[in-house]
Amino acid sequence: MYELGVVYRNIERADAGVAEKLGALGSATVHEAMGRVGLLKPYMRPIYAGATAAGTAVTVLLHPGDNWMLHVAAEQIQPGDMVVAALTADCTDGYFGDLLATSFKARGARGLIIDAGVRDVSVLAEMNFPVWSKAISAKGTIKATLGSVNIPVVCAGALVVPGDVVVADQDGVVVVPQAMAEKTLDNAQAREANEAQKRATLASGVLGLDMYKMREPLEKLGLRYID
Amino acid sequence: MYELGVVYRNIERADAGVAEKLGALGSATVHEAMGRVGLLKPYMRPIYAGATAAGTAVTVLLHPGDNWMLHVAAEQIQPGDMVVAALTADCTDGYFGDLLATSFKARGARGLIIDAGVRDVSVLAEMNFPVWSKAISAKGTIKATLGSVNIPVVCAGALVVPGDVVVADQDGVVVVPQAMAEKTLDNAQAREANEAQKRATLASGVLGLDMYKMREPLEKLGLRYID
Amino acid sequence: MYELGVVYRNIERADAGVAEKLGALGSATVHEAMGRVGLLKPYMRPIYAGATAAGTAVTVLLHPGDNWMLHVAAEQIQPGDMVVAALTADCTDGYFGDLLATSFKARGARGLIIDAGVRDVSVLAEMNFPVWSKAISAKGTIKATLGSVNIPVVCAGALVVPGDVVVADQDGVVVVPQAMAEKTLDNAQAREANEAQKRATLASGVLGLDMYKMREPLEKLGLRYID
Amino acid sequence: MYELGVVYRNIERADAGVAEKLGALGSATVHEAMGRVGLLKPYMRPIYAGATAAGTAVTVLLHPGDNWMLHVAAEQIQPGDMVVAALTADCTDGYFGDLLATSFKARGARGLIIDAGVRDVSVLAEMNFPVWSKAISAKGTIKATLGSVNIPVVCAGALVVPGDVVVADQDGVVVVPQAMAEKTLDNAQAREANEAQKRATLASGVLGLDMYKMREPLEKLGLRYID
Amino acid sequence: MYELGVVYRNIERADAGVAEKLGALGSATVHEAMGRVGLLKPYMRPIYAGATAAGTAVTVLLHPGDNWMLHVAAEQIQPGDMVVAALTADCTDGYFGDLLATSFKARGARGLIIDAGVRDVSVLAEMNFPVWSKAISAKGTIKATLGSVNIPVVCAGALVVPGDVVVADQDGVVVVPQAMAEKTLDNAQAREANEAQKRATLASGVLGLDMYKMREPLEKLGLRYID
Amino acid sequence: MYELGVVYRNIERADAGVAEKLGALGSATVHEAMGRVGLLKPYMRPIYAGATAAGTAVTVLLHPGDNWMLHVAAEQIQPGDMVVAALTADCTDGYFGDLLATSFKARGARGLIIDAGVRDVSVLAEMNFPVWSKAISAKGTIKATLGSVNIPVVCAGALVVPGDVVVADQDGVVVVPQAMAEKTLDNAQAREANEAQKRATLASGVLGLDMYKMREPLEKLGLRYID
Repeated sequence: MYELGVVYRNIERADAGVAEKLGALGSATVHEAMGRVGLLKPYMRPIYAGATAAGTAVTVLLHPGDNWMLHVAAEQIQPGDMVVAALTADCTDGYFGDLLATSFKARGARGLIIDAGVRDVSVLAEMNFPVWSKAISAKGTIKATLGSVNIPVVCAGALVVPGDVVVADQDGVVVVPQAMAEKTLDNAQAREANEAQKRATLASGVLGLDMYKMREPLEKLGLRYID
Repeated sequence: MYELGVVYRNIERADAGVAEKLGALGSATVHEAMGRVGLLKPYMRPIYAGATAAGTAVTVLLHPGDNWMLHVAAEQIQPGDMVVAALTADCTDGYFGDLLATSFKARGARGLIIDAGVRDVSVLAEMNFPVWSKAISAKGTIKATLGSVNIPVVCAGALVVPGDVVVADQDGVVVVPQAMAEKTLDNAQAREANEAQKRATLASGVLGLDMYKMREPLEKLGLRYID
Repeated sequence: MYELGVVYRNIERADAGVAEKLGALGSATVHEAMGRVGLLKPYMRPIYAGATAAGTAVTVLLHPGDNWMLHVAAEQIQPGDMVVAALTADCTDGYFGDLLATSFKARGARGLIIDAGVRDVSVLAEMNFPVWSKAISAKGTIKATLGSVNIPVVCAGALVVPGDVVVADQDGVVVVPQAMAEKTLDNAQAREANEAQKRATLASGVLGLDMYKMREPLEKLGLRYID
Repeated sequence: MYELGVVYRNIERADAGVAEKLGALGSATVHEAMGRVGLLKPYMRPIYAGATAAGTAVTVLLHPGDNWMLHVAAEQIQPGDMVVAALTADCTDGYFGDLLATSFKARGARGLIIDAGVRDVSVLAEMNFPVWSKAISAKGTIKATLGSVNIPVVCAGALVVPGDVVVADQDGVVVVPQAMAEKTLDNAQAREANEAQKRATLASGVLGLDMYKMREPLEKLGLRYID
Repeated sequence: MYELGVVYRNIERADAGVAEKLGALGSATVHEAMGRVGLLKPYMRPIYAGATAAGTAVTVLLHPGDNWMLHVAAEQIQPGDMVVAALTADCTDGYFGDLLATSFKARGARGLIIDAGVRDVSVLAEMNFPVWSKAISAKGTIKATLGSVNIPVVCAGALVVPGDVVVADQDGVVVVPQAMAEKTLDNAQAREANEAQKRATLASGVLGLDMYKMREPLEKLGLRYID
Repeated sequence: MYELGVVYRNIERADAGVAEKLGALGSATVHEAMGRVGLLKPYMRPIYAGATAAGTAVTVLLHPGDNWMLHVAAEQIQPGDMVVAALTADCTDGYFGDLLATSFKARGARGLIIDAGVRDVSVLAEMNFPVWSKAISAKGTIKATLGSVNIPVVCAGALVVPGDVVVADQDGVVVVPQAMAEKTLDNAQAREANEAQKRATLASGVLGLDMYKMREPLEKLGLRYID
């Protein structure tokens, strides 16, 4: 968490197949399957419509206005990774643009989650390199101070440990701790299995009140209908 | 306003035809025609580009982190309604997703206005079910506490009474009290009638300064031109 | 800065060709070439995806809830200008809509930068008239108080002097003082010239660590790799 | 709600004695006694430490940057009133200073609740005239546009009807609808009666877990203790 | 504005006596006397109750997370100066603490206006060294990048030119351009002269409606009284 | 981090004497000694002027609008503890008031850090029970859902592990991981030892530029002085 100036090279990653499957289920389903924890703050938004990505976390701790460690992180990326960048203090500068994206993509990164700003967003969209960020800003950054790579970080209010699964789409970004990944996948798939049928039932005009058998508990709590 | 645990079943709705026509005129024109009142705070944004909707309000009062009353509200929806959901305290959780949208759509709802978060936004866009919200969040909600349905609510800073007309588009969300709906429509249509000609005049290069005869009042107030 | 009730008619404008070329380079490159100054706050966002514009600044100082001076400004627009509107206090009202856009376009304006709200955004997108604003709001404004046209203004945290170059795109809005425009163009073009080669190198898998020769300075600062 | 340019002179006020007693109980107790509704957004803060006030609402609807109707409102103030000022759009200007406070005080006002800014706050503190506001700002306002006095308004997210009881202190501002004032007082007093004993029990070291008999329901929900 | 790496040593300062007198009149009166311009954003707040200060501006441009230039600025302070610190991008770090305050005080500074964070605020209060800032934060800063001293800067939305008068108190911070200082003082004193009498009139129960003769213009605009 | 419905009873706490000494040094000094990490977001502010506290962390994870687990946490408090409350989603409700404070105080708690709202702040100030919070709100909370006690939590952007040292004062809140507590104390004391002499030197008029020998590095970077 608090170690500065270090790069952990050999991190254990969650299973790539599990990460992919969690990604296919989407952040909302995965978040429910986790027990409603692990969500990054909703100010983290994709830079273009339709962006989705999932993978294993390579983490970076950055200082305000300094993107040096993103270059250091690039070397630690393996195919299937998501880079998760946290800051030691709030900053909206554009830490990441098309050159770094080219490098990250060449290394096999699936996307970037950054609790700061990015730039060259038109080019990133053309490149189809998805980013979830707090801001978009043309402002560049310096390269002066050491942060760290692959230490546990707090990104947008959530703890991310290197190797955790990260699922990101239009609904937000969820982190699944490595040790919970498989069980979360099971839960999420079970949840998903029910959804198609529920959707059909609701589409036919049946009310959730009846489908979920809510009338009795609501009545017990004293809900009154007034004509 | 302050009644908890009640559902009003027989609300009087504004005329559906009037609501439709107000919707076609758009929120900016309707807001002008109202005398510049009735606008929800501009943080309420559509979840996808191009969303527009109008209808009569079915209102819901929700607690932070609890979406139970949206299920209760579903039963009260009639074709042509807009659901307007207010909260007892600020919350960005994702109260509404594709299942509730399926149910609302089956009931004939035109859209949802919610002073909180929503999720499954990609699916909502595909379903073409428009929502105006304060946030997008994968975080689900519990079902534990009674709110109310079809009581007057304050949603994003505006009072909404059940049956009022709600007009929502890319410029925001305006509420038209039932008793003012027809007169507002008259004003709005009159306003609209002038616009085409004004637009043509301005497009021809005539200045607003001349078209609106502003030069004299500006001079009176002392506007000075310096070469 | 602080002169109210005046309109400067004969402002000196930066070279139109230079403005156009700076626009083609984009806000991020221009901002770097300026030495990382001149950026408006990142809350200024384009009202539609893909919007880009550049030109010479015609400035307006407005009061909260009053858009009168935008009509006065229209007369001072020359082809190739960008209108930059600042406020004396924060306001999110919709100061600008399709009628003013029609007028501005007829005068040859390239776009509008406004530290407040706009409306009719769907129509503005159809008209292809780009606006960068702080908010979108259906709320109209009055015409009661004098501001000024073509005085230096502070817009979204940046000083803009009439005639300065304004470059706006998906990454934000940068202002280039007239006296720095040519030199900034030279810097920006030099910067751009290197980028294609850098991109190719990074795309081939070479790391920024090596391409920028960062390993030695990082080691000097004490960066430790842990296996 | 939406009537502009009117002043209602003969409003019915909640009982002054009830208002006073509710004030003495404080906003937190009153809010609980209301069933946890009626609270203005927590961004409304007292301008000096220790401020408390309660009374019956005289309401004002103001436009951004225009405080004219506060002068109109002054005439409608009766001893024991609280002035509640709402805005048609967000604004932080300083609408109210020592001159208006002198006038309001001379009329018998107990305080001001304003969803905007105030100024002369040092003098207001010396005068002991309490204000709850969204901002403090030296910026003055114009007198150009009609709002209304004594119509229902939405202030900081809460509906306030003329004559309602307003209770304001360091914890925030609560509005009690006139029709609920007596019953709320009864509830609040009952609640308060228990508090002294509860406080003594807790101070003696007894846990809330035991005093409120929470252990069983927690266990039922599955709370696990791990040593 | 945009010159980095320079320190202007010989700036022309507004008259010290004028600055002092403007300070005694207070930010609200001075802001009115300026014609309602020159106010910094109201998020700039004093770090302790009762703080007031006025003087001539020594300006500093800082980078996010880097306070080096405050040390460079210290040398340029003359007795009676106010230091005004602007940033190239938003940052809440604690740029200034008791050591720098000791140095600034030894040089004769009256106070600091900084569009960022400060720390050691308890000690600063004991030292009676007033600061207006955007945040309070224990987080320190690095010393790595050149900014500038005594160039024009935009601080919290207002242009501040070295030598301008800065007036700061509980209502906020106003900047008076050097060339306008004397005239602003005249206006402010004239304004102040009237206030005592107005206050007495209003305290006697006379309404602003009558004292300012507002009834006629209100009636003309159509204000209706309803009994 | 993500375990719901559990209470860890036997946590290992950092040394009480170390915690006390770190508290005496203050958050700014401790934060520097940590290497500028471990600070909670600066929106966390003390509810009354002069509040300071330090101790070992008892952590709580709460749901929006639900304070039940604070009662569960009370039982786990030992003399010298600081309670640190995190939320699963943003909420400003008043989770904590005078009754809970009475209970916490009876158990020996030194204070509360809560990433949400509190109420009864006047009474808390009289009781001298310090709280750092994100908001003040009269709104109460329900008791319906299980969170956890003494699991690692993210509070206001910082990871807090049970037993960590928490230092809170007017400059903010810093968390020191248990394993770093002693070393941080050593660093902080060494730092503090130098400060008195530095302060005296600066007070005598010596500039930081000279005391810290900054002139040479500034010159090397190209700082230019212009007369």
